[in-house]
Amino acid sequence: MSYNLLKGKRGIIFGALDENSIAWKTAERVHEEGGTFVLTNAPIAMRMGSIKQLAEKTGSEIIPADATKVEDLENLVEKSMEILGGKIDFVLHSIGMSVNVRKGKHYTDMNYDFTTKGWDVSAVSFHKTMQVLYKKDAMNEWGSIVALSYMAAQRVFPDYNDMADNKAYLESIARSFGYFFGKDKKVRVNTISQSPTPTTAGTGVKGFDGFIAFAEKMSPLGNATALECADYTLTLFSDLTRKVTLQNLFHDGGFSNTGVSQEVMETFVKDQE
Amino acid sequence: MSYNLLKGKRGIIFGALDENSIAWKTAERVHEEGGTFVLTNAPIAMRMGSIKQLAEKTGSEIIPADATKVEDLENLVEKSMEILGGKIDFVLHSIGMSVNVRKGKHYTDMNYDFTTKGWDVSAVSFHKTMQVLYKKDAMNEWGSIVALSYMAAQRVFPDYNDMADNKAYLESIARSFGYFFGKDKKVRVNTISQSPTPTTAGTGVKGFDGFIAFAEKMSPLGNATALECADYTLTLFSDLTRKVTLQNLFHDGGFSNTGVSQEVMETFVKDQE
Amino acid sequence: MSYNLLKGKRGIIFGALDENSIAWKTAERVHEEGGTFVLTNAPIAMRMGSIKQLAEKTGSEIIPADATKVEDLENLVEKSMEILGGKIDFVLHSIGMSVNVRKGKHYTDMNYDFTTKGWDVSAVSFHKTMQVLYKKDAMNEWGSIVALSYMAAQRVFPDYNDMADNKAYLESIARSFGYFFGKDKKVRVNTISQSPTPTTAGTGVKGFDGFIAFAEKMSPLGNATALECADYTLTLFSDLTRKVTLQNLFHDGGFSNTGVSQEVMETFVKDQE
Amino acid sequence: MSYNLLKGKRGIIFGALDENSIAWKTAERVHEEGGTFVLTNAPIAMRMGSIKQLAEKTGSEIIPADATKVEDLENLVEKSMEILGGKIDFVLHSIGMSVNVRKGKHYTDMNYDFTTKGWDVSAVSFHKTMQVLYKKDAMNEWGSIVALSYMAAQRVFPDYNDMADNKAYLESIARSFGYFFGKDKKVRVNTISQSPTPTTAGTGVKGFDGFIAFAEKMSPLGNATALECADYTLTLFSDLTRKVTLQNLFHDGGFSNTGVSQEVMETFVKDQE
Repeated sequence: MSYNLLKGKRGIIFGALDENSIAWKTAERVHEEGGTFVLTNAPIAMRMGSIKQLAEKTGSEIIPADATKVEDLENLVEKSMEILGGKIDFVLHSIGMSVNVRKGKHYTDMNYDFTTKGWDVSAVSFHKTMQVLYKKDAMNEWGSIVALSYMAAQRVFPDYNDMADNKAYLESIARSFGYFFGKDKKVRVNTISQSPTPTTAGTGVKGFDGFIAFAEKMSPLGNATALECADYTLTLFSDLTRKVTLQNLFHDGGFSNTGVSQEVMETFVKDQE
Repeated sequence: MSYNLLKGKRGIIFGALDENSIAWKTAERVHEEGGTFVLTNAPIAMRMGSIKQLAEKTGSEIIPADATKVEDLENLVEKSMEILGGKIDFVLHSIGMSVNVRKGKHYTDMNYDFTTKGWDVSAVSFHKTMQVLYKKDAMNEWGSIVALSYMAAQRVFPDYNDMADNKAYLESIARSFGYFFGKDKKVRVNTISQSPTPTTAGTGVKGFDGFIAFAEKMSPLGNATALECADYTLTLFSDLTRKVTLQNLFHDGGFSNTGVSQEVMETFVKDQE
Repeated sequence: MSYNLLKGKRGIIFGALDENSIAWKTAERVHEEGGTFVLTNAPIAMRMGSIKQLAEKTGSEIIPADATKVEDLENLVEKSMEILGGKIDFVLHSIGMSVNVRKGKHYTDMNYDFTTKGWDVSAVSFHKTMQVLYKKDAMNEWGSIVALSYMAAQRVFPDYNDMADNKAYLESIARSFGYFFGKDKKVRVNTISQSPTPTTAGTGVKGFDGFIAFAEKMSPLGNATALECADYTLTLFSDLTRKVTLQNLFHDGGFSNTGVSQEVMETFVKDQE
Repeated sequence: MSYNLLKGKRGIIFGALDENSIAWKTAERVHEEGGTFVLTNAPIAMRMGSIKQLAEKTGSEIIPADATKVEDLENLVEKSMEILGGKIDFVLHSIGMSVNVRKGKHYTDMNYDFTTKGWDVSAVSFHKTMQVLYKKDAMNEWGSIVALSYMAAQRVFPDYNDMADNKAYLESIARSFGYFFGKDKKVRVNTISQSPTPTTAGTGVKGFDGFIAFAEKMSPLGNATALECADYTLTLFSDLTRKVTLQNLFHDGGFSNTGVSQEVMETFVKDQE
């Protein structure tokens, strides 16, 4: 079904790796809603993924870019405007990676080179993207920029490691840059704090399956899926949410405001007996 | 313009007093988006307002109800299902009133009978509405219930008086009832924390014009209007936000996450010199 | 051990029922730290409790007061100043009760007379106490007022019922009144959001033992005890925290900022297998 | 005046530059309260400062350490235990610096090498400090670690630049590491979010004097001074706050929960006329 919610809008979508990705689902839904866009991913991620299928399916072009490199981002933004025929209306930043997690380094035994790399990829890349867009005056008024975050930015999930700190930094960038993008260009900037989602990236985290089951039981409406996240992202790209900015928006079936659910308590009490 | 975002959906809209009301604008936009609804207001408010024009314009019926009276709400819900031909998909609660404010009682010199009356009208009415909907099993799965709130629930705005406490209670009801409505009926419940808005109700608050100007300067995107709030409410009623629940959502041009703006600082510094 | 942290300070302590009470422990610790105070409780609670032992032990007088009755509070404040020989430096509000909980009414099947009574006792009593203190100019500069709260004000704990909403209202009163008490009298007002504590009052809540065990496992430092809460309260009454105001302070071993603990996940995963 | 609140406790204090520093005031107050400690600062900062006077006054030794270098921190922790004669009870991290601010780079025109340097100094240094303490098992049970933060971690203050993002990362580290330090070592970790304070470091920020005046008017109790911050820090180092952990604690005269004050509104309205 389509509402034509994004008819005539142009965008850039970062981070579509494979069909489990939130960015992939978002690209599909944006296409259905009438938006056009450029797909981008890191060259290394593109080799592993199947992004070309997505490009074909949605009639999009792909521009590889390492989001930690300003010159790549400059090329991306310039080419995107050429290809799409005008300034940008929406951007999705769906990038995150912790080298400490990948290498099995515990949070109390970090390798700080890994920490710096993960921070650059997962958080600073969002600033770099916006700085390039801002300097090139590449966003249309009332455009919308969204990055994906996670509740570990507010509360401890022990296996989430330094990604928690990266997400806290990412959400802060959204506020800090959102202020200037709002005042100077009338562009809004928000983060979506999404349920744990069984993407290919997410499954790298230790004990992830158990945690997804736990989150499902904690959330009054259950976990939000990648497709549901795509739908929610559409609303933030649309003209119906023009005054929502500097926000971190929980899209999680209610987990974030649930202290404990009856199901989790029952499981716990049963175990204690 | 219409996206047919609410085609086939049925609802109840509380609190449309006149064309400045957020509820009024929401009713108009819901109508444009293909939704049908019943309008309701307190009998006394209806005498003052022009709600009949809205009903005619949108092809809606009006059912008067004092939202502090459970029997009125029971009648409202039953009749609404009859008129609309099925269970309810969306509800807007836009009701608030402080007798202390109206009577000029300062927050440090409250009349507690006034306090109780304002709390019942502004906050408990939301619980009563949901309890009736819940007991009558009147909501469709994936229905959406929204109440309007204000940032005074989190931070002090000295003239807002006991409405601050009422809004804090209202937002707590949204979480508490949202948990059970989610688990048991798959219905979501949220509050929108809206910019100060020059509605007929809002203008009762002391120094309101000055405050609206201040909020405008503090907000990177400026204040959100009643019409923009209506648009945002549409997204929460739509099928695109099914997993957003138990949230208080700031719709305020970014005011809530701005510590101070450059304009406000400049005004302040100029005055100090 | 004593630091003489409250030497020369005078106060009023509400809600010491028996030796499990946080207020009881606080009275004992304030006494050890050199403070003097009047004890107060509702006449009905006093009959059930053993507050006279506490009064003897700490050399304090007892003034019964129904904290929902302004005239009782006026008498309490006047008599306290007489007995203690001067204005008040600290106040502890430790009062809470839900008739819906006591009568077994579920949150989705509330009796609104019960709701109103519980709100008045648990939340409005805090406003009434402060309004009497403010009008009588009964607080010394840099005095400190503390009320006890619980995290259900922010997140859903399903069995906590309407006490969640009452605590949200209570915390809002602390902010709203704290603003005026700060500006006009240099008095600070805060709430402490305490771990679930096995007091005589707390044990009325369904499934409370299981929940205490759950909170213990969720909290990196374990639950805070009543005695530890008393110690923390001392710091807020002392001259070392003069600029802390309008805050809700979590005293809970870290539960509030823990998304999930390893122990809880292990219990959960084990159960799923 | 002294309460002997920290008698017998041993600590490490980072960041005492000159007598305006919060760390300096804290060192003085800890000394008065019976605690012993080692002072540390970056070699370059020590050349500029007068830390030797502080060391003499408080009978402390100084160990230079670049808090971004793990080997310096290892040396610091080992030597501190030798000098103090046992494990550590308290640590104050009061370090922050933005190269972008110093070099006059706007937030929308960052130099990312500067960003990385500032992040390392202001935020990662806190992780490095804790990782060294943790690995060397250098903290006593019920020890307390505090870092100084600022409200820009939650809300935008336009001139605060990338320090906002650094503080958000710092506060996240406090939660993330606090979880493991609590579970494994019974050590608490918190941040204090302090009023803008006219320290030598703070005065580097553009328009700082005007902002201090603004914060003074916004805060119901006025700004918290460096000395008051020292006093508050004492309570967090003491045995009276053992179950407070993973928290960001606002010490700001109430600014954080004030939406607007009457004085600020009056100034604003006057200007508009």
